[in-house]
Amino acid sequence: MIAGIDLGGTQVRVALAEDDGEIVHSDKTRTGLLKTPQAMVDWTAAAIHRRLGRKKLRAVAIGAPGPIDTTRGILSNPPNLPGWQNSPLERMLRDALGCPAHLENDANLAGVGEYHRGAGRGSRNMVYITWSTGVGGGLIVNGQLLSGSHGSAGEVGHMIIDPDGPLDGCGQRGCLEVFTGGRQMQAHTGESAAEIFAAAEEGDHEAKAIVDRAAYYMGLALINVTNLIDPDIIVIGGGVTRSWKLVAPTLEQVLRSSPFIRPERRPKIRRAALGDRAGQVGAVEWARLSL
Amino acid sequence: MIAGIDLGGTQVRVALAEDDGEIVHSDKTRTGLLKTPQAMVDWTAAAIHRRLGRKKLRAVAIGAPGPIDTTRGILSNPPNLPGWQNSPLERMLRDALGCPAHLENDANLAGVGEYHRGAGRGSRNMVYITWSTGVGGGLIVNGQLLSGSHGSAGEVGHMIIDPDGPLDGCGQRGCLEVFTGGRQMQAHTGESAAEIFAAAEEGDHEAKAIVDRAAYYMGLALINVTNLIDPDIIVIGGGVTRSWKLVAPTLEQVLRSSPFIRPERRPKIRRAALGDRAGQVGAVEWARLSL
Repeated sequence: MIAGIDLGGTQVRVALAEDDGEIVHSDKTRTGLLKTPQAMVDWTAAAIHRRLGRKKLRAVAIGAPGPIDTTRGILSNPPNLPGWQNSPLERMLRDALGCPAHLENDANLAGVGEYHRGAGRGSRNMVYITWSTGVGGGLIVNGQLLSGSHGSAGEVGHMIIDPDGPLDGCGQRGCLEVFTGGRQMQAHTGESAAEIFAAAEEGDHEAKAIVDRAAYYMGLALINVTNLIDPDIIVIGGGVTRSWKLVAPTLEQVLRSSPFIRPERRPKIRRAALGDRAGQVGAVEWARLSL
Repeated sequence: MIAGIDLGGTQVRVALAEDDGEIVHSDKTRTGLLKTPQAMVDWTAAAIHRRLGRKKLRAVAIGAPGPIDTTRGILSNPPNLPGWQNSPLERMLRDALGCPAHLENDANLAGVGEYHRGAGRGSRNMVYITWSTGVGGGLIVNGQLLSGSHGSAGEVGHMIIDPDGPLDGCGQRGCLEVFTGGRQMQAHTGESAAEIFAAAEEGDHEAKAIVDRAAYYMGLALINVTNLIDPDIIVIGGGVTRSWKLVAPTLEQVLRSSPFIRPERRPKIRRAALGDRAGQVGAVEWARLSL
């Protein structure tokens, strides 16, 4: 058997799967209840062992919020998990589960999940963008995750789109996240992204203008990743997929507005298919690929 | 033996090499003298056959200005080669030379050259940027050229950096090339980039300000490719390398100014080592890799 873990700021999800990636059991809990990395590892190991029976666990992978150190298997400095700095998650999981453990960026593994089991199936080059409170991404090139030299590739949200734009929490000015992320939307309007999207769906003009502006900037990012990566498909996941009809037309329109990206090389834009299961599905695939 | 061709708007260069990539002969002529694709192929074949003797040519690769269609081996619509549209260069070279022929984007092959024989040797993930009249690029990921789904990856010059910026010849507003390319520099100032860089080197304040501004925008592009690709090295080639000391400090400074790109994952910035031979060296390597 193999296992995949999706460690988020809000929830931890674990999935147990057959060697072919077929998930036979999954479980979740609130991250806040676990408090420490060791408690998370213990909860995960218990959840896996309860269902593993006499079968053998061959590999586990865990997706976690960056920045992480993939060469040493360490969660470096996750902004949404205060107190979890420098946790050697690979070693801790290996000790608790008795099998090889692999740490990767959460958005990268969600991209791996969508590529193998979701909206990206059958493509060769795929850009995955997760668009929620923050904006992240994962790049699949020739069927392989582009992890980069330090496990930090695919940081789509921190591409600078307008150097005179507002300051983002990352310390850069005018990066994609500051124009599109839900956290910044709330900081600028006082309302949560969920409230703004709901109002826009009900026809509120001001809310619609805020959503359109965010979608316009996301569209520019699609132009940029198309020019850099030349994917056949761009898959968009995260909270925004619940309001897909509100943003998809603008994304399509902005991408089409680039005369440089001619129709024959224009990638498809698709909504992610796995919802909030993308991370655990991707972690299972990642563990499977490590065998 | 293998051969590599670098087809530029100004010059055509051809190199003949041993199977290990060691170039034993090279030749060049002005593109303008050749007039048609068939004349270019004939000149190239004659240059190769003159030196090949009784040896056998096993493969040839050609780098050409985009857009090209790598799946069909066709030069699509090169802006600097009017009248060369839709030339089936792979088939023409195969017919003339009696061996497999491979067409790739010229900046991609210059990147391949710098990666295998130039400033990028020993790296794993490398971003190559050619900064001249236009701005192009080539991405090397895990030692492999990232060509993309339509052979159009690495178009660094057409990444949008400021959506309210000036209109570029590509039809997009505020892309990197419009802020940094020599063609646009000349269009906006009336002086050639060579004149502006020369004046800046002699201490002309106005010229220095123009160069600094271009280097600032190029620095933003370095932040963006670092966030997307996470390379260990960025190699910059093209005409600007003749004024390296004028631009390198600004490039370094802008890249360092991003708090999001922490020192341990900051790529090295290096001047290309092969000069205007990068394209032919890369074409030879590309032919070699096809064997």
